[in-house]
Amino acid sequence: MEDYKAFIEKALNEASQLIKQKLGDFTVETKANPNDLVTDIDRLVETYFVDQIQSHFPNDHIIGEEGIADQAKDLSGTVWIIDPIDGTMNFVHQQKHFAISIGVVVDSKPTLGYVLDVHADDLYSAEVGKGAWLNGNVLEKKKTTPLNEAVIGVDHSFFDRQPSINQVRAQVRGLRMMGVGAIELAYVAAGKLDGFVTNKINPWDYAGAAVLAIEAGVEITQLSGEPLDFWSQSDLWCGNVADKETLWK
Amino acid sequence: MEDYKAFIEKALNEASQLIKQKLGDFTVETKANPNDLVTDIDRLVETYFVDQIQSHFPNDHIIGEEGIADQAKDLSGTVWIIDPIDGTMNFVHQQKHFAISIGVVVDSKPTLGYVLDVHADDLYSAEVGKGAWLNGNVLEKKKTTPLNEAVIGVDHSFFDRQPSINQVRAQVRGLRMMGVGAIELAYVAAGKLDGFVTNKINPWDYAGAAVLAIEAGVEITQLSGEPLDFWSQSDLWCGNVADKETLWK
Repeated sequence: MEDYKAFIEKALNEASQLIKQKLGDFTVETKANPNDLVTDIDRLVETYFVDQIQSHFPNDHIIGEEGIADQAKDLSGTVWIIDPIDGTMNFVHQQKHFAISIGVVVDSKPTLGYVLDVHADDLYSAEVGKGAWLNGNVLEKKKTTPLNEAVIGVDHSFFDRQPSINQVRAQVRGLRMMGVGAIELAYVAAGKLDGFVTNKINPWDYAGAAVLAIEAGVEITQLSGEPLDFWSQSDLWCGNVADKETLWK
Repeated sequence: MEDYKAFIEKALNEASQLIKQKLGDFTVETKANPNDLVTDIDRLVETYFVDQIQSHFPNDHIIGEEGIADQAKDLSGTVWIIDPIDGTMNFVHQQKHFAISIGVVVDSKPTLGYVLDVHADDLYSAEVGKGAWLNGNVLEKKKTTPLNEAVIGVDHSFFDRQPSINQVRAQVRGLRMMGVGAIELAYVAAGKLDGFVTNKINPWDYAGAAVLAIEAGVEITQLSGEPLDFWSQSDLWCGNVADKETLWK
């Protein structure tokens, strides 16, 4: 995978510079609902990756949030799962706390994962069986945290399942809502959060971070405990937290 | 106030370096409850400011979160209101998203305000009647945002007042919980959030950001609309958002 890794790190660097040049100079549209934002930069960055991948790895398939490439029909072969900007609302409102997420899945198996926190210049990377890194520093294997000492990242959709935020809050040390699942998952792998939970997430939001979590020794599954399939929208838990199921059961 | 401003900027720079040297090398205790964390670094930084202020401005009074100095008896004269580390839980768990907050109040009137996002090296500063700046760049006066286009920062205590997060969420574009009021308030002044709301905040958490908000043309009051008193714990709204009262009424 060395050629893939070198390619990805170069492309992430170029895409990051592209985004930074466009900070404060973009147009915003809405997608499925008025709070589902997309900018021309999301499309520009996905187009950049699609062009680069098709040129370097013409036999690979691509799944991207913005649907620029012909979407893969299944997860056979080598499939790139890309979110050009996760946290578009943060990109638009804050110009920070957004990420590029790239996962490479080979015959359904998560193999390489990258999350680049663009504004912070923090590159989270992982290769299955080899390890996970933050800016080249190894992420240690994570221990288990008691629920009442855990700081948990929560996606707003989680409250569709568990409407009482006060009940959730009473069980943990702290709750955070960053609005950028890829970074929150990378934070769990890096020990900056103890868990992340959502009722609804797409593969392009977790495909990059999943390998990070696996290589940092962190659980990442559906809320049922079933594996993620890297294909369908699902719920998700990430973290090593004792009795975490009491948050949603 | 030029001597105060030069003094504060130098002291913030030194305190920031002190904190960065101690990242990953601190001891944690709890205060009022198991989730109210304090570290030896909080105390070290407050002690540093108290020593510096008493040496340079011996007639001034000081209110600090950790109570290192003899606390001011009222807000007459020049009073420094200091949080050496706002967001201690983030400092402990994330080593980012924490701030030093300094407000200078003269005869009860907020006069100077500083919030330093230590990890990001972002210095928010303001002088009453003169303006507000982020890293020296002027913060423009803020316009009013419709509630349904607003991204709102929320402190977890807000849900004591309004237990239905889903009701809050349905009215806005997005909710964020960063766990660091001083930065969330500074974000509102800088346009990175449209509002911040809490049911419970202490003067040392808002005294630095209040001048920023005022100088950026942003409302900052109790939820009743009454002015903040810079002395007592209270609820708080910050932001220019139409119909924001529907969030808590």
